Order: sequence, then C-alpha cells, then structure tokens
Amino acid sequence: MTLTVGVIGGGQLARMMIPAATHLGIQLRVFAEAEGSPAGLAATAVGDYRDADQVLRWAEGLDAVTFDHEHVPQAVLQRLVESGVPVRPGPHALLYAQDKLLMRERLGQLGLPMPEWAAVSTEAELDEFIEAHGGAAVVKTPRGGYDGKGVKVVRRGHEAITWFEDAAVGALLVEELVEFRRELAQSVARRPSGAITAWPVVESVQQNGVCAEVIAPAPHSAGKLADVAEQIAVTVAEGLDVTGVLAVELFETTDERLLVNELAMRPHNSGHWSIEGSTTSQFEQHLRAVLDLPLGGTGCRDPWSVMVNVLGGPMGESLDSRYSRAMGEHPLVKFHSYGKESRPGRKVGHVSMGGDDLDDVVYQARAAAEMLAS
Amino acid sequence: MTLTVGVIGGGQLARMMIPAATHLGIQLRVFAEAEGSPAGLAATAVGDYRDADQVLRWAEGLDAVTFDHEHVPQAVLQRLVESGVPVRPGPHALLYAQDKLLMRERLGQLGLPMPEWAAVSTEAELDEFIEAHGGAAVVKTPRGGYDGKGVKVVRRGHEAITWFEDAAVGALLVEELVEFRRELAQSVARRPSGAITAWPVVESVQQNGVCAEVIAPAPHSAGKLADVAEQIAVTVAEGLDVTGVLAVELFETTDERLLVNELAMRPHNSGHWSIEGSTTSQFEQHLRAVLDLPLGGTGCRDPWSVMVNVLGGPMGESLDSRYSRAMGEHPLVKFHSYGKESRPGRKVGHVSMGGDDLDDVVYQARAAAEMLAS
Repeated sequence: MTLTVGVIGGGQLARMMIPAATHLGIQLRVFAEAEGSPAGLAATAVGDYRDADQVLRWAEGLDAVTFDHEHVPQAVLQRLVESGVPVRPGPHALLYAQDKLLMRERLGQLGLPMPEWAAVSTEAELDEFIEAHGGAAVVKTPRGGYDGKGVKVVRRGHEAITWFEDAAVGALLVEELVEFRRELAQSVARRPSGAITAWPVVESVQQNGVCAEVIAPAPHSAGKLADVAEQIAVTVAEGLDVTGVLAVELFETTDERLLVNELAMRPHNSGHWSIEGSTTSQFEQHLRAVLDLPLGGTGCRDPWSVMVNVLGGPMGESLDSRYSRAMGEHPLVKFHSYGKESRPGRKVGHVSMGGDDLDDVVYQARAAAEMLAS
Repeated sequence: MTLTVGVIGGGQLARMMIPAATHLGIQLRVFAEAEGSPAGLAATAVGDYRDADQVLRWAEGLDAVTFDHEHVPQAVLQRLVESGVPVRPGPHALLYAQDKLLMRERLGQLGLPMPEWAAVSTEAELDEFIEAHGGAAVVKTPRGGYDGKGVKVVRRGHEAITWFEDAAVGALLVEELVEFRRELAQSVARRPSGAITAWPVVESVQQNGVCAEVIAPAPHSAGKLADVAEQIAVTVAEGLDVTGVLAVELFETTDERLLVNELAMRPHNSGHWSIEGSTTSQFEQHLRAVLDLPLGGTGCRDPWSVMVNVLGGPMGESLDSRYSRAMGEHPLVKFHSYGKESRPGRKVGHVSMGGDDLDDVVYQARAAAEMLAS
C-alpha cells in the first residue's frame, strides 16, 4: 500500500525529491537519462524519455508521474495519459512550459501582465519589433531553452540569423527589453483537486542568465507586492491547470509593475531555500501535490533565508577538504552537493542559511559557496 | 572523490541517514539484514553482519563504517579495523554499548552518577541485592536488549530464573529501582579528532519501556540541569572514546540527581526531533562526525519541538487515506514513515512539530501520530 511517484529525468531536482520521499515513506522511481545521474540512487530505469515504449514500461503501477524537466514530448505524455497513469502536471499544462509562444498567447488570454511580445519569422519582422521598442529586444527560441540558453539580446534582426535559418526552431519569440529593478520569483503548489498554497515571493539575483542567489522573502516585499505576486502565480496555476509546483519568474520594473518572465512547472532553483527555510520544502510539497495529498504549511522558518548556487570550476581540492574548510568556518550553513561532475559554470550544488540579520546571512552563504566551489 | 559511508544495519536509523547523505553529496552504502529493509534504497549488500567475510567484502573502499545498531560482534569489528577501514565508533567504544555490565563498570571508573548496581549469577545473589535495595530491583541481560526487551522489574530472584538458566546470558546486571521524576536524554556528537557538540537535553516519555514522545528542549531544564546533562554526556563520549552520535538516557530523580540509565552510540529515537528542530539533525551530524568533518550548529529552530512515535496497529486504511486525514488536519506537522510492515507495538514512523506554544505543539503532534497509526 506504498505510494509510488515516478520522476522523468535524473537531475538535481529529482535528486532533491529523494529526501522528501524517504521521510514521507513514498517510493520514488526515477527514469534517468544516463547511469550515474544526480538522482541515480532512485533510478529504476535508464533510457530515452522520447521513447514512449520505454517510458510506459517504466511507468507501470505508478500512483503519479512527474518531472525533473519539461522536455518530454507531447506524444509520450499522451501515451502515458492513455495508459491510465496520472501525469502531473498534465500534457495540456506542460505544453505552456514547453513552448514560450503558446505560453505568451495563453497568459495574454488570462489578462496577465507581461512584456510586450510578438512571434517573428523573418529578420525584417524582428527589425520592425526592435525599432518599435527602443532599438533593442530579447529574442528567444520558443522550445528547449534553459539557464540563459536560447535567449539573446539583439539590436538588429540579423543577430538572430542562425535561428531563423534553422528550420527546426520555427517562429521566434521576441520580447521588449524590460527595464527592471530586480527579478522576483513566486512559487505555488496546486493539487489536482484544486487546493493551492504559496510560498512568499523571493528575490532572485541572476548572473550571466543563471540564477546565482535567492533571498526569501524578497526584501521590501511585504504587503501589496507580495499579494500581487501571489495572485499572478495563482492565476497562472489555475488558468493553465498546473498541478504540482509552479514557479513564476517575474520582473519588478522600474515603473513599479510586475511582469511575468518565465514559467517552470516543477521545483525550481528559486525555491531551494525552502528545504531548510520553509515548514514544507518545494520538494515535499511537489510530492504531496502530485499525489493529491493535503499541502503543508509554507511559512518561513527564519526572518531571512539565503540560497547561493555553487558553480563548478576547475577541479581543485577534493570534496573532503573543501567541506572541511567551509563547514569549519560556517557551522550554520547547510550544504547541498548534487553529485555532478564539476564543469565551469555548471550548477553542482548550493548552500543555504537562515537567520535574523540579512547582511550576515548573505555574507556567510556567499563565503561558504565560494569555498565549496574552489 | 566522493565521500562514502557504510552503515551496518538497514533499519530506520540507516534510512534516516539517506536524506542527510543525499543533501551533502555523501554516498551511503548500507549492509542490510534482508531485502526490503527500511534503508533498502541505499542497500548495496544484503547479508549476515556476523559473517566477517561478507562484511569485509562490502566494506571495501569505504571512507568510514558506522552502524544502525550495536549488535555487530567484536570479532567482525576487529577484522574491519585490521582491513584499514575507519570504524566509527570503534570496537573499543562499542563494547560498552554492547555489554551493560562492562558499561556500568567503566562509568564507575569515570566517576559518573548512576543507579546502584551489581553483577549477579544466582537467585541468591539477586535476592540479596533486592533485599538491600527496598524489596525490588531492575534486572537486565547485559547483551542484546533494546526497547524494553531484556529488562525486568523483579521483587524475588526467582522471577529471573529463565535468564539464570540460560547459559548464553551469563551474569546478569541488577540495578536499584530508581525513583525518578522523569526521563531525559542528552545527545552529543564527537569527531575522531576530538571536537564535540551537544544538542539541548530533551525529555523522553516512555510507555511500556518504549520511547513514546520527546520534548526538546526538556521543560524546566535551562541552566544547571542542562549543563550537568551535557557534562555527563561529554564525559562519557570522551571517556569511552565514542565517535559519531552518542545518546545518554538519564533519570532525573525525585531527589534532584541525574543518573545514567542507558547509552546508545548512534542516532537515537530521542534525537529524531532534530531533523526539523535543530540546525543540524543527528543524522547529518553523525555522518559529519564519522567522516571527521567539522560539526554543524546544534541550536533549536523553534522554542519547542515535539516528536511522537507512530506505533503499528492492525492494518486499517492505506497510507494514502491516513495521510489525507492527518495532513489535512495538521499542515504544520512533519511526517516520517519508515516503510516497515505494521505490527502491533512496532515503531513504524514518527511525527514532529515545532512552535511557540508547547501545549498546542504536543496536542497536534499526538493527534497527527494517532491518525497516522490507525
């Protein structure tokens, strides 16, 4: 009578579901891309998630299927649904995390605030948009991008020529270059039966298009800003029928608006602070949500929580000696290592810390992350 | 360059090391007694821990070996030490957790406070002790007891006749029946290089010889009581050269003394509250200690943390429907299920909750545990 959740994808998001599943007594079965993946401990199949037959064999008997990433093709998702396994989020929701043009269109129908955008198929169309929006724009491939890949700031349509020439890419999404004060992220979790909980809105500091640091809650966010952020994410979750965790990346503009940037329908880097910082972590909540179990409390356990990503560098000291230094200096910092091979710029772990004094917490988390990376 | 820790025994204590190891990027390899054990996810061998050859094969290449229980024979432990694998705690320390007569003798040498005791080999000797100590005493088999097994309150030596007649048992330990106000437990963790940290002393409520409930910190313990408890555990850890977590069960007597009841050289039921309630859980700290990594902070994250064990009963509803009820009523309670088959009186999980109001926290934790058990 055990509850069993399947996760497609063996990355660090699947890996961080293992602790939550272990405590709850939920069996996790991971469909991994390769041997030795971060979630390898829970892998029960290694294969190609684009191959419906492989995925269906693995999925037999699962109480729910969910995801480490959004790249599973709709055809495979449909086969899973037809086989009777609950797929959460469902294909009809995931579609909008897979295709940014469809996402923009749908968010527009829901009346949600977002940057001005257009679909463009030629250099000339792109040039026209750029000209109408102050001489620069952000151009994105609608599918397959992540962590700054498939995103480019351009001043001339010609700069996107390789994408226009790639027939597989199709029309491109172009968006105005928003003048923003900072980036925020709002996560919620939603059950198939409809109940929804929200964590506080957080501030996310990006470097080179990759999330580097998260502060929870976002400084100066109490009151209206937090309410609006939550309302936006709730509207997206309900409007798109998302189940499980939904993270909405937001711009806080210099003229005081919140605009929807990107969506992720799974636990998200901006929510890692919740492992120690919230009563219920995003990984536990995701498992509860996809199983349609009641959701846990989402309050903050500390006045401030800070998460700093650890990026891979040239392999220096062993984990042993890096831990010796970092743990010795920072006994209140919590360390997370994803079991990935270190490569420059690759997310190989994160650290987090909670406390009363934001300056101290930020300082210690950054220093510990630095020690762990080197 | 991964750090790898081996755990002998596949019970819930090994299971609860999995989340800590996963977050830290430590590989856990469990030597389990049977297939489908609570720590089965991390099992890399299933076998008999009394067979040195099996254990040695499994232990190859480990950075440290530690334990889910204290029952590994000294001969096997010695073979492990000779093979060059760091065994933590070492055989010379574990000996005192394996044999209660040796433990009493050694604690006496260290000048630690404890109940009056004697080794008795005949009914007559036991009768003599009983007579000298108010007409009743606690008699214990020195080896192999746990959770109230191998412990008996007697008023006549004859009541221990089956143990006297069992040649395998040998001399018995007899102790005065202490009049205590309550039971406390003090946990510490110690690195091979000597550093030591202590969690606050906790109150442990026993039912039928089994830990039922833990309150952290123990009510009315601030000040001298906490200091004395900590000093006792530190003295035991250093005097016996314990590495990893040590839990010392204590009686607080009606005449205001603290007496050492039992020792456990591993994470202990009285420390489960630390998973959510302390900056560093006993499972994480144990892994850090046995790897000789710097220890983490041991402060309380809430004014009060309460842990209530979930005991198995007749199998009623599925985990699914029990969770639906318990999680629905208690969104702030954290649930832990050990993946064990339910049998009356068996520990199959626990719940914990933190908060400001002890009465509310105790009430909710008990209610949630009740819902999970039925």
